[in-house]
Amino acid sequence: MREHHLTVPVPMERVSIRDRFWRGRIDQMAREVIPYQWNALNDNIPGAESSHAVENFKIAAGLANGKFYGERFQDSDVAKWLEAASYSLVSYPSPELEKVMDGVIDLIGRAQQEDGYLNTFFTVAQPENRWKDFSHGHELYCAGHMIEAAVAYYQATGKRKLLDIVCRYVDYIISVMGPEEGKRKVYCGHEEIELALVKLYRATGDEKHLRLSRYFIEERGKQPSFLAEEETFGWIFKDKWFGLDYHQAHAPVREQPHADGHAVRAMYLYAAMADLAAETGDSTLIDALGKVWQSVAGRRMYITGGIGSQGHAERFTFDYDLPNDVAYAETCASIGLVFWMHRMLRLEPNGAYADVMERALYNGVLSGISLDGTRYFYVNPLEVHPEAVRERADHKHVKPERVHWFGCACCPPNIARLLTSLGQYVYSTDVRGVYVHLYMENEAAITVGSHKVTIAQKTEYPWDGDVTLEVHPERECEFTVGLRIPGWCKAWMLMVNGTPVLEPDVARGYAMIRRAWKEGDVIRLLLPMPVERVKAHPLVRENAGKTALQRGPMVYCLEETDNGPNLAGISLSKSADIRTASWEDGPEGAVALEAEACRDDVAGWGQQLYRIGEFPAVPHRMRAVPYSMWGNRRPGEMAVWIRERG
Amino acid sequence: MREHHLTVPVPMERVSIRDRFWRGRIDQMAREVIPYQWNALNDNIPGAESSHAVENFKIAAGLANGKFYGERFQDSDVAKWLEAASYSLVSYPSPELEKVMDGVIDLIGRAQQEDGYLNTFFTVAQPENRWKDFSHGHELYCAGHMIEAAVAYYQATGKRKLLDIVCRYVDYIISVMGPEEGKRKVYCGHEEIELALVKLYRATGDEKHLRLSRYFIEERGKQPSFLAEEETFGWIFKDKWFGLDYHQAHAPVREQPHADGHAVRAMYLYAAMADLAAETGDSTLIDALGKVWQSVAGRRMYITGGIGSQGHAERFTFDYDLPNDVAYAETCASIGLVFWMHRMLRLEPNGAYADVMERALYNGVLSGISLDGTRYFYVNPLEVHPEAVRERADHKHVKPERVHWFGCACCPPNIARLLTSLGQYVYSTDVRGVYVHLYMENEAAITVGSHKVTIAQKTEYPWDGDVTLEVHPERECEFTVGLRIPGWCKAWMLMVNGTPVLEPDVARGYAMIRRAWKEGDVIRLLLPMPVERVKAHPLVRENAGKTALQRGPMVYCLEETDNGPNLAGISLSKSADIRTASWEDGPEGAVALEAEACRDDVAGWGQQLYRIGEFPAVPHRMRAVPYSMWGNRRPGEMAVWIRERG
Repeated sequence: MREHHLTVPVPMERVSIRDRFWRGRIDQMAREVIPYQWNALNDNIPGAESSHAVENFKIAAGLANGKFYGERFQDSDVAKWLEAASYSLVSYPSPELEKVMDGVIDLIGRAQQEDGYLNTFFTVAQPENRWKDFSHGHELYCAGHMIEAAVAYYQATGKRKLLDIVCRYVDYIISVMGPEEGKRKVYCGHEEIELALVKLYRATGDEKHLRLSRYFIEERGKQPSFLAEEETFGWIFKDKWFGLDYHQAHAPVREQPHADGHAVRAMYLYAAMADLAAETGDSTLIDALGKVWQSVAGRRMYITGGIGSQGHAERFTFDYDLPNDVAYAETCASIGLVFWMHRMLRLEPNGAYADVMERALYNGVLSGISLDGTRYFYVNPLEVHPEAVRERADHKHVKPERVHWFGCACCPPNIARLLTSLGQYVYSTDVRGVYVHLYMENEAAITVGSHKVTIAQKTEYPWDGDVTLEVHPERECEFTVGLRIPGWCKAWMLMVNGTPVLEPDVARGYAMIRRAWKEGDVIRLLLPMPVERVKAHPLVRENAGKTALQRGPMVYCLEETDNGPNLAGISLSKSADIRTASWEDGPEGAVALEAEACRDDVAGWGQQLYRIGEFPAVPHRMRAVPYSMWGNRRPGEMAVWIRERG
Repeated sequence: MREHHLTVPVPMERVSIRDRFWRGRIDQMAREVIPYQWNALNDNIPGAESSHAVENFKIAAGLANGKFYGERFQDSDVAKWLEAASYSLVSYPSPELEKVMDGVIDLIGRAQQEDGYLNTFFTVAQPENRWKDFSHGHELYCAGHMIEAAVAYYQATGKRKLLDIVCRYVDYIISVMGPEEGKRKVYCGHEEIELALVKLYRATGDEKHLRLSRYFIEERGKQPSFLAEEETFGWIFKDKWFGLDYHQAHAPVREQPHADGHAVRAMYLYAAMADLAAETGDSTLIDALGKVWQSVAGRRMYITGGIGSQGHAERFTFDYDLPNDVAYAETCASIGLVFWMHRMLRLEPNGAYADVMERALYNGVLSGISLDGTRYFYVNPLEVHPEAVRERADHKHVKPERVHWFGCACCPPNIARLLTSLGQYVYSTDVRGVYVHLYMENEAAITVGSHKVTIAQKTEYPWDGDVTLEVHPERECEFTVGLRIPGWCKAWMLMVNGTPVLEPDVARGYAMIRRAWKEGDVIRLLLPMPVERVKAHPLVRENAGKTALQRGPMVYCLEETDNGPNLAGISLSKSADIRTASWEDGPEGAVALEAEACRDDVAGWGQQLYRIGEFPAVPHRMRAVPYSMWGNRRPGEMAVWIRERG
């Protein structure tokens, strides 16, 4: 086993977020979205699309008559809601909510079959098809989400009921599939149970849960693949984009050189591999993760942390293929990327992972939800031309405006469970000390070795890079504070108690301060945030000759409402000064950008479609706003990448 | 009726093309492609996809047993072949070919039903569905192609047999549908019969043929539409891209403000409308044509004369939506555009129509066929990245290389019938004289008023713009020679017998020389062909900041085989000199272009996907070749639009 350096996240219940940027959004999740979502799951929202998810459990429990309704993974909506609600209980204790949750957990228990099986679709609608469609049936996927819910609820409340239910279900699964002779050699087409089983193992300490996760990961991709024998494999059969690689099943996981296939599935697999490596120290898994990490972060990721550049099959395509207007970049895939990076940081506190986590979080994830928390994007393109979205068949997966969450139930609860558990992403600890991965205002109660330390972080991040951390150790004690230096920051300064730290020790992107910390010590990290012009790798053909604007972690974009139509006609000279500006019609504190640019003069062009000679151009005061906040005003065009003039 | 100025094309049999550029391709059609295609129609090509088209006629005639095989418009392959073969008989008399044609015409006669009906699919396979599927059944479309074949064969040979067959069929059609009470109020989802009936009228002089064409055109688009009531309407029913506008049936033809729907269908409709206007002088039709002409040429046409910017439903989308890489730009649609423009020139000798005709002919049509005449593109994108074509679902309609013609039978015979009848596109006459629309080496025997005049045109066009026309009138006579001044030509010079014509009269793009012409008078037109940088309208967002290179009528492109991979990384400074160069591995006489450009330096970039700062760039000797000739060497990337630097 190769030496590796494990860190453990500081759990969410120890980190109290007080941030101006995040607090309102998290509050909204707990106070509005989670109750609203419960109503949606119970079809109590007039005019909304039916969910039927709770009713399906009632039918499976024999408490109601009727037919199963919804997707075959409808159960996972209930599970994800339980998980998010559990997280919200941690910061917002609510006996009423807990009572509702206990009720639905009772119901889930009644829907569980004699043998431990638990899935309403394959209980009510197609009992004859149990375990017949691993490609698209989502049975183990739903089991995984129920396990995550059970662990979350157990950790939030100490109550074991749902944990016992899923343990019984897992026992049944172990009786059906696994490496032992006579058992089926299978795994789920949509990864999820693998990471859930590691969570379960960490909650129960029962090795069999870890062993099952490991089995699914090791079995995956063995050839010839049992998936290819299934009736539903390939979905529309001849569709090559639904082949084995769609399921990350084209090769054993250690032999997959690229991030391939359905992007969310890939993220959940890699997250599970990282979990497994953290538990087992298997260096071959870490090597495999290194390859797919290079593939994603080095060749297959949008600047927003969006992944999956094709709508059809919601998947990765090939290196440097990152079209802006027909991107898929599903919100859930960016959330999955955050999950994965968080686990990579457990394996190694490396700023490159935290950079990607931050990039996804502040851009491709947050773009998925409107500022008022009521509307969602599933698809997060980097360029939107509303007429093309309406009129072109190859844009049909794109929406020019966010939609209310209940239209489809996949991304909204995923955002909810990420935001309600955001605290756990900020810090981690190892034997040497504490690492600070993200900057946001919070107070954290951290155990470093045998010492209890409170850290109070103050900042206006992401709008300002002045970060103060007050250290309050229980008693004076020596440990390391590792402060992430973001990859976007070229010149930074670090002070302790007002004294600059000269030549600080920087290890893999973290400035390491080791000292005996005393009550009231103050660390100040200054991360200047000039506006940066970012270029894409020259093989990203869509972005040739173009620049993106970034300030701090925030990627910017142009909107029609600020810049008029035909954003493609705007160009920015290489020498143009880009200024920060207050954003009057944006959220409090948010920073806009302005520059003197040019735009092609449509009025001066005339009627001809093609013409010999120069473009007429006119001056244009360009205004850019944070990408994650686009589409909250008037609908219209949007573009991240801006043409640059010589 | 608005005054309009009719001209009549000089028919193909009077124009003998001797051109280095065209002659070889036309020869190839007559000597190789037409016999080859006959074998294909008879399934005599080992390894080729089955056609069964002749066999279908045998089965329908009761001369063979078996099942119908192929598309429901399979009959049209036989008809288009007969039409092209008829044209080739004009220049290449062949008793053997004529005998084969007489044989198949006999067979067609035997396949005709008692009542005059003639369609093997609806005779053999689905007799119960006759006239039930106007949306997608192609019955009248097939009838139209058979009528065109009949007229062509009659004009080539003087034999009436096929003409009589189709006249009987038309009589039957008239008995079923038409404006009279009790008849069905219908028209074909795929236009074709409308223009064919005008040809038939011109051959027979029978007004009923013109009346039926007029009826179909006038009936089209009346609301509510009978098409929308048909079972197959909308194809996959909910697919909005197969709605009424797909068939140009969303409004009466005079009320269609844009070119909409399936591009080939639209071209055939507009061609028929122009034919009808030429016969009737209906100025409201001419006004309607003016609107769709503005729509196509001003807002919806690629620089190559390609039309139809979406693969799904092979159709027009919206103004200025001209993506290069996912273009459809079907070869048949550009051929249809040539057909339409030719008819517009009949209504009015306007250089704008001839410019578009030339643009399509030398670029978007010719790109459809390989230099050796054996391989075809159906789809003619302006940018090809082979990996994207292979790996992206939204590129699946694109092929990175031409395919052998028999894979699908639509475009190849369309190219054949255009090239074998190319002579008719060169000249037209009116009461005042003769118009020269296209420049190519040929000898033409023209009747101007009551005078016979031979014109011998000598030129190396399109590679050189020095055009000489020797005028040989039967006897000295006064008439006008109108020489088209191409829209791409900014400075030209005209001489008669060596004397410059100062301040020549230019009317709608034609330099008009009126004089008493004597034997041996020589007109010399010098059309200098500097390399031009063409820009697209600033609302064509795909081409913002880009330039296309054009020399004479030829649009150029970059190929990977000359420029290495990642063509998107190449940029051309605004001041760079672009030189002509001989093209060693191109066809004889063809001109390549060269310039000192830059390319983004992939090697100097490193591993990062995104980076702050400038692109490293390195010098690059750029080489461009004619677009219509791309893909004849090693496969690889191709791009028409090149990034321009300040």
